Amino acid sequence: MTFAARILSTLAESGRLCVGIDPHDGLLDTWNLPRSADGVREFGLRTVDAVAGRAGIVKPQVAFFERYGSAGYAALEDVLAAARAAGLFVIADVKRGDIGSTMDAYGAAWLTPGSPLEADAMTAVAYQGLGSLAGPLALAAEYGKGIIVVTATSNPESIPTQTAVRSDGRTVAAALVDDVRALPGTAALVIGATVELGDYGLAPADLGDVPILAPGFGAQGAHLGDLARVFGAAAPRVAVHVSREVLAGGPEGVAPAVDALQHELRDLP
Amino acid sequence: MTFAARILSTLAESGRLCVGIDPHDGLLDTWNLPRSADGVREFGLRTVDAVAGRAGIVKPQVAFFERYGSAGYAALEDVLAAARAAGLFVIADVKRGDIGSTMDAYGAAWLTPGSPLEADAMTAVAYQGLGSLAGPLALAAEYGKGIIVVTATSNPESIPTQTAVRSDGRTVAAALVDDVRALPGTAALVIGATVELGDYGLAPADLGDVPILAPGFGAQGAHLGDLARVFGAAAPRVAVHVSREVLAGGPEGVAPAVDALQHELRDLP
Repeated sequence: MTFAARILSTLAESGRLCVGIDPHDGLLDTWNLPRSADGVREFGLRTVDAVAGRAGIVKPQVAFFERYGSAGYAALEDVLAAARAAGLFVIADVKRGDIGSTMDAYGAAWLTPGSPLEADAMTAVAYQGLGSLAGPLALAAEYGKGIIVVTATSNPESIPTQTAVRSDGRTVAAALVDDVRALPGTAALVIGATVELGDYGLAPADLGDVPILAPGFGAQGAHLGDLARVFGAAAPRVAVHVSREVLAGGPEGVAPAVDALQHELRDLP
Repeated sequence: MTFAARILSTLAESGRLCVGIDPHDGLLDTWNLPRSADGVREFGLRTVDAVAGRAGIVKPQVAFFERYGSAGYAALEDVLAAARAAGLFVIADVKRGDIGSTMDAYGAAWLTPGSPLEADAMTAVAYQGLGSLAGPLALAAEYGKGIIVVTATSNPESIPTQTAVRSDGRTVAAALVDDVRALPGTAALVIGATVELGDYGLAPADLGDVPILAPGFGAQGAHLGDLARVFGAAAPRVAVHVSREVLAGGPEGVAPAVDALQHELRDLP
């Protein structure tokens, strides 16, 4: 089963919510956890416990674990293992981007079965071209894993680069969409829920049947009701990333917040 | 002292060579080291020993340590500490790119004094705009650290994105150069030694007095003699990255290879 088939099946069966695991300083304080490797481990494990059975996908933000060096990575390993053991689909948000043997090593770290950092998918940046991700994409094909390519993002300062026009007449973002559509179910797209696809020369139909990871809800300005307006017929294939709105109420707030959002999403196109 | 002043002083006093610490599988085999966290630690420590006193800059490729999870990161911490203790200028090649609190956490991990992963500079990708790196750039200013922004790279598949034209008429790469030049000595540029600056709408004079990290020598096709042709008057500010040509001869080959390259570079513009 390809990554695309796996994540689309998760979205259909377990709902579209993708819960961020984002133990930044402010949230650690809110949760009364120490700003340390132990703090981010506890934060991650409690989030996994609260999400399991309520949503299908979690996305640990690896930066918040890397902040504590190797001890933070050991905590991350525990969180990744717990999430996978709980049957959650795990996206490692690492946004790696490089070429050659370096990019291959990133793929091996995050996508190889049995690796201490094994996830179901990793995020990646293709500033050096989607072709630079060929090694990890081949690995993903072998193991049913996936690469989620940062394409069109919500922060305003990203627009000039992502809407720039290539010599073939396509925008940078639109060319990435075409390239990802041509892959055999090994990749997905990060498209912010606040973007106007038209700014990138894109329409919802251009997204084909590729899965989409959409940040930008909540504090960043998008509402769940925007899903259909932004993504049109692609809306059912969107993993709706939420973080602060689920995590800011402390550990006891996670489960009810997830339930409420899942309920709201069920009635939306 | 700013990062730019520090690295330019290192280039002037210790020569332009920047030695990669790239323990990928093939090199571990050549060095008779295990493909493990212990193997990459030993590889890194031996390289640091051989380079110290012979060149001024090392660049550990973090992917090859991440491959072994938290144990690999513990090895990396030892290598970073040894390199800094030996007085080497340390560039963590991590190519991080994100926004907001996530990007801040990356900056804190790699640039904060006392962090287990402390380096003198980190590489970063600005697919989401240079503005997305504002947090780590502020941190860099505070501590005399630096961010080296991937701008124009050697791999052919990178060209369509990096030469794409923004709505303000500048290429993606040229706009990054302008943005980095406007910073107060906190950033440098990655520009491959095989690129033709003209393809990006750039000339050597456009690079101002910003430091440059140039990969692409050796196996990737550029020769040291290309420095002046590609970078013109900026050539003295280029950190010349080499890896395979220094590492492929096994641990005993590092010191003589570094000496030979430093000697060759001294006579070049």
